[in-house]
Amino acid sequence: MGLNSEQLAEIEEQRAQSVPTRRAVSPGMEEILYEAIPILDHGFVRVVDYMGDDAAIVQAARVSYGRGTKTLNSDAGLVNYLLRHRHTTPFEMCEVKYHIKLPIFVARQWIRHRTANVNEYSARYSILDNEFYMPAKEHLAAQSTVNHQGRGDVLSGKDSDRVMDLLREDSERAYAGYADMLNEDADGNPVDDSRQGLARELARMNLSLNFYTQWYWKTDLHNLLHFLSLRADSHAQYEIRVYAEAMLETVKKWVPATYGAFMDYRVGGTNISKKGMGVVKRLLAGEQVDQKESGMSAREWRELMETLERPEHQKNES
Amino acid sequence: MGLNSEQLAEIEEQRAQSVPTRRAVSPGMEEILYEAIPILDHGFVRVVDYMGDDAAIVQAARVSYGRGTKTLNSDAGLVNYLLRHRHTTPFEMCEVKYHIKLPIFVARQWIRHRTANVNEYSARYSILDNEFYMPAKEHLAAQSTVNHQGRGDVLSGKDSDRVMDLLREDSERAYAGYADMLNEDADGNPVDDSRQGLARELARMNLSLNFYTQWYWKTDLHNLLHFLSLRADSHAQYEIRVYAEAMLETVKKWVPATYGAFMDYRVGGTNISKKGMGVVKRLLAGEQVDQKESGMSAREWRELMETLERPEHQKNES
Amino acid sequence: MGLNSEQLAEIEEQRAQSVPTRRAVSPGMEEILYEAIPILDHGFVRVVDYMGDDAAIVQAARVSYGRGTKTLNSDAGLVNYLLRHRHTTPFEMCEVKYHIKLPIFVARQWIRHRTANVNEYSARYSILDNEFYMPAKEHLAAQSTVNHQGRGDVLSGKDSDRVMDLLREDSERAYAGYADMLNEDADGNPVDDSRQGLARELARMNLSLNFYTQWYWKTDLHNLLHFLSLRADSHAQYEIRVYAEAMLETVKKWVPATYGAFMDYRVGGTNISKKGMGVVKRLLAGEQVDQKESGMSAREWRELMETLERPEHQKNES
Amino acid sequence: MGLNSEQLAEIEEQRAQSVPTRRAVSPGMEEILYEAIPILDHGFVRVVDYMGDDAAIVQAARVSYGRGTKTLNSDAGLVNYLLRHRHTTPFEMCEVKYHIKLPIFVARQWIRHRTANVNEYSARYSILDNEFYMPAKEHLAAQSTVNHQGRGDVLSGKDSDRVMDLLREDSERAYAGYADMLNEDADGNPVDDSRQGLARELARMNLSLNFYTQWYWKTDLHNLLHFLSLRADSHAQYEIRVYAEAMLETVKKWVPATYGAFMDYRVGGTNISKKGMGVVKRLLAGEQVDQKESGMSAREWRELMETLERPEHQKNES
Repeated sequence: MGLNSEQLAEIEEQRAQSVPTRRAVSPGMEEILYEAIPILDHGFVRVVDYMGDDAAIVQAARVSYGRGTKTLNSDAGLVNYLLRHRHTTPFEMCEVKYHIKLPIFVARQWIRHRTANVNEYSARYSILDNEFYMPAKEHLAAQSTVNHQGRGDVLSGKDSDRVMDLLREDSERAYAGYADMLNEDADGNPVDDSRQGLARELARMNLSLNFYTQWYWKTDLHNLLHFLSLRADSHAQYEIRVYAEAMLETVKKWVPATYGAFMDYRVGGTNISKKGMGVVKRLLAGEQVDQKESGMSAREWRELMETLERPEHQKNES
Repeated sequence: MGLNSEQLAEIEEQRAQSVPTRRAVSPGMEEILYEAIPILDHGFVRVVDYMGDDAAIVQAARVSYGRGTKTLNSDAGLVNYLLRHRHTTPFEMCEVKYHIKLPIFVARQWIRHRTANVNEYSARYSILDNEFYMPAKEHLAAQSTVNHQGRGDVLSGKDSDRVMDLLREDSERAYAGYADMLNEDADGNPVDDSRQGLARELARMNLSLNFYTQWYWKTDLHNLLHFLSLRADSHAQYEIRVYAEAMLETVKKWVPATYGAFMDYRVGGTNISKKGMGVVKRLLAGEQVDQKESGMSAREWRELMETLERPEHQKNES
Repeated sequence: MGLNSEQLAEIEEQRAQSVPTRRAVSPGMEEILYEAIPILDHGFVRVVDYMGDDAAIVQAARVSYGRGTKTLNSDAGLVNYLLRHRHTTPFEMCEVKYHIKLPIFVARQWIRHRTANVNEYSARYSILDNEFYMPAKEHLAAQSTVNHQGRGDVLSGKDSDRVMDLLREDSERAYAGYADMLNEDADGNPVDDSRQGLARELARMNLSLNFYTQWYWKTDLHNLLHFLSLRADSHAQYEIRVYAEAMLETVKKWVPATYGAFMDYRVGGTNISKKGMGVVKRLLAGEQVDQKESGMSAREWRELMETLERPEHQKNES
Repeated sequence: MGLNSEQLAEIEEQRAQSVPTRRAVSPGMEEILYEAIPILDHGFVRVVDYMGDDAAIVQAARVSYGRGTKTLNSDAGLVNYLLRHRHTTPFEMCEVKYHIKLPIFVARQWIRHRTANVNEYSARYSILDNEFYMPAKEHLAAQSTVNHQGRGDVLSGKDSDRVMDLLREDSERAYAGYADMLNEDADGNPVDDSRQGLARELARMNLSLNFYTQWYWKTDLHNLLHFLSLRADSHAQYEIRVYAEAMLETVKKWVPATYGAFMDYRVGGTNISKKGMGVVKRLLAGEQVDQKESGMSAREWRELMETLERPEHQKNES
């Protein structure tokens, strides 16, 4: 996952240190703190700091003076109630900071979530490593013909071989060009004394979007859950979804009560329109309904029938 | 400061607990954690959680893998450089959460800072206490005649007595009306069985703006410093400035290197316009300059001369 | 609604002016521009500027060069699709600016929505008018016993008379105290020459939360819809809901296609949890389900049965 | 600038349309509305909508009912005062929307400004054009040896030729690989019938960071000025600075009073630390000061002497 032995040693050294604190501590989070969870071929996610736990959400909701004497059980009940009724501010009272290594095209999607603090590795100051993302063959797929976005069928072996070769060659060439333009060795001396290297801020433009970058990314729990609800979703691109799924596991370790409510109400939850609820109620009352009288468009009807797992009605109507 | 013995006990209980953590710990902040710092007559500020320290800023700026082996000294130098050159994102990597009790009119100014997370005590659910702000007599002043905002001369004893009496009577009457409309005793039973109480969300409107509210307020260090630069300023209203000053002390405990740079470059710093710098350079070169040839308005000129502590030039020109 | 003849004349004068523009124009919004829509006893909402229309959403979604040749119909379909699938960024491409006059306790709820630009009338600079909110008798209700928040039964005539008298007397007294402390007449001269007035920033604290303030409030369409989905909801306090309902009408005038999709999918829409969808699917398949086997708490079950309009199941189960 | 004749026609068509509005209109902005200002080799900036003008800032600051009868002159004075004293909220009352075409590495810097609304052309849905940024030879420079970031000396002709050849070849090859993997012609049919194309969301990763993307970008005037103060600065990378400079010209057309104050106080303004002001005051009083007694670090002293244009003192001290 692109961590060299020196970096691993730094992480281990930090994990080995432990000091007393008066703050709220999440045992699950302490366990995984600083550890790099490998993602894709060279990427990772690791928690580098956090603030608060499930109890801190309850504490903020009650604007209380101490940790209180409430049971774990009633805390979980309140957390569930708050999440269900979209009382979002108490969830903003927990914070988490990640160190993430990710391909640039994934970083470009990620950064569209604006309610986070970000500090990215600067390619104006520093030289990027020769690390680029090569998809596994089973993730190379054709354009989806259903939703005009995302992937459809996996490519045949021959077709995916061609893609793999092309991606690898072009990536290697891009880095070679980058290095050539920089004309710097590991100590910052010219490789070729007879010429000047190009400024880093310019040379980087030769790299392709599958090269890895990294950043510190910090956000509150409410905005993290919003991010995860979009990016751990089946419509999200595979390469960002795997990050979201790993982060979801860190949420489970950190704030288990919140995680439970989130999986039930957000990730597994469904939004049904007013027209859609009208259809559901009539169906529950034993009536027959078809698309035309529903007032819904063919596409909306099909989406509703999928949600209700009534595929035979899809076929009839669309 | 409006803390009863039960609340003080809860705070003490929380302070007494200590568990090991792998996270960055700020010794200065641990020392004051949970303690209520008294502000005004019934208010307080207390730190209820924090994330990060001076080293965490450096760590984020470097997107590093460990705490690093750099000396404290070089960390302070980098923090100073980052603050001086407005590299703000590393300062966003530290977070702090306060519990604050404050008069409603102060809360109304405070909330205009939007880049924070807030959870306020709800007067729709709960009943507010009978606590209102009474200024000390030495803080009762007339409207400033200089800047059309803020305070000028302190009132005479007779005038301030009148104000104090009026404020106290009206506040007491406001709370009596609130309590009468609620018609609830401490156990939630009617005081007068023969009539219905008014909903809390309505009754609260009888309270005046000097009554106290409280909230959990959480923000990152960069935005906290921005808040403090405005609210610890001499132009800020006294009643919010005392909160800002107390919080500034918590910053000093938490991140001393950042605090030092902040006091030098922000709180003590001065912004001089292009025209103003033209004047400064000419003065340094030994030239004479007056307002007319400076291109500045009379007011701008006066402000510049104040900044440069050349009051005699103010008088001549404005 | 607290507009004097001079203000009405200023509004009329502005409405009478019209100049050509190359920008997108919403005919419905032009019609109501600047007009004050009366809310409560002294409040109002008025649109003072706007940017974009339904077509601008489509234009942004397509990152297009012109207004395009697409039909109105297909624009509405795309707007519906974008809203349904929570593609929120195109809705951020429209902006609206309101001038609002509202009681302070309503302003305190309102300001918790942070993704807006606000400029409030300053009671540090200026003197507030003698205008306070008096609820209509039919809106005076007891605390709800169901949800521990909000209102239940309307008060009896005798009880509401008492509240009305008390609110009016206390409000009048609060303003009298404010005016006395200020000791300023309409021209800024002392009413009583023998004493000094108190600074405005201090005197204001004697006013109660039902006094009116006003502000300019500007936000994008996406965040406006989020605000309206919370504040036009039946659980919102009546006094803010009436503002939200009036603003919903301005949205209908401004961007009718967005309004239609919003009413169907957000205002009328329902979120059902994963467990809840399990129940719905089993019911649709003709199975019997009760609370225990659903995995839901009694409260969650009751909420689901309300949503599905199966009240008889509520009684049986909870 | 990468606009084909169809796009130019769409722009011209939109410019030709004009309808009456009651809203505030900025004559300078109307003049340039929709026009693409060419930037770099294929990029552009064009204003596609705006809200408000200089008078709208004043109007919001006064929370006024009409446009008012104040003179243009006093409006400019108030705008200058507001900007000088960092009363930022009135500037948030103006809004502007740009359509921008820019290289991806520039977009990556740009997007770090979070207080804006963005809708980017989606390379998951659509195919990117074969357009990549080639710097002019005079902008190819070596890494700066002074500030460890940014550019120093311009490359020699031979060295820059080598860079140009390399950049062009690699970019062309990257696009060829992208097209090969997509295997789609302009009508969406396979180029080579015997194989499947790769999904767009994957194929795009072969493109390098100098390829062009485009987006709609909308922000308020306050945040725009903040963006411009950082990106029109001499320390900003040339490729983003040219965009900022062009946008600065649109600000001049739009809100001339704000532009004037901004150029004087922000762009041309200088922040001097408390220690620095101590030095300035002593110098103005005719005293001699050197670095050691100033309490400043060598680097801070050098920066101050540069600011005061006293280069001889730099040499002596650092």
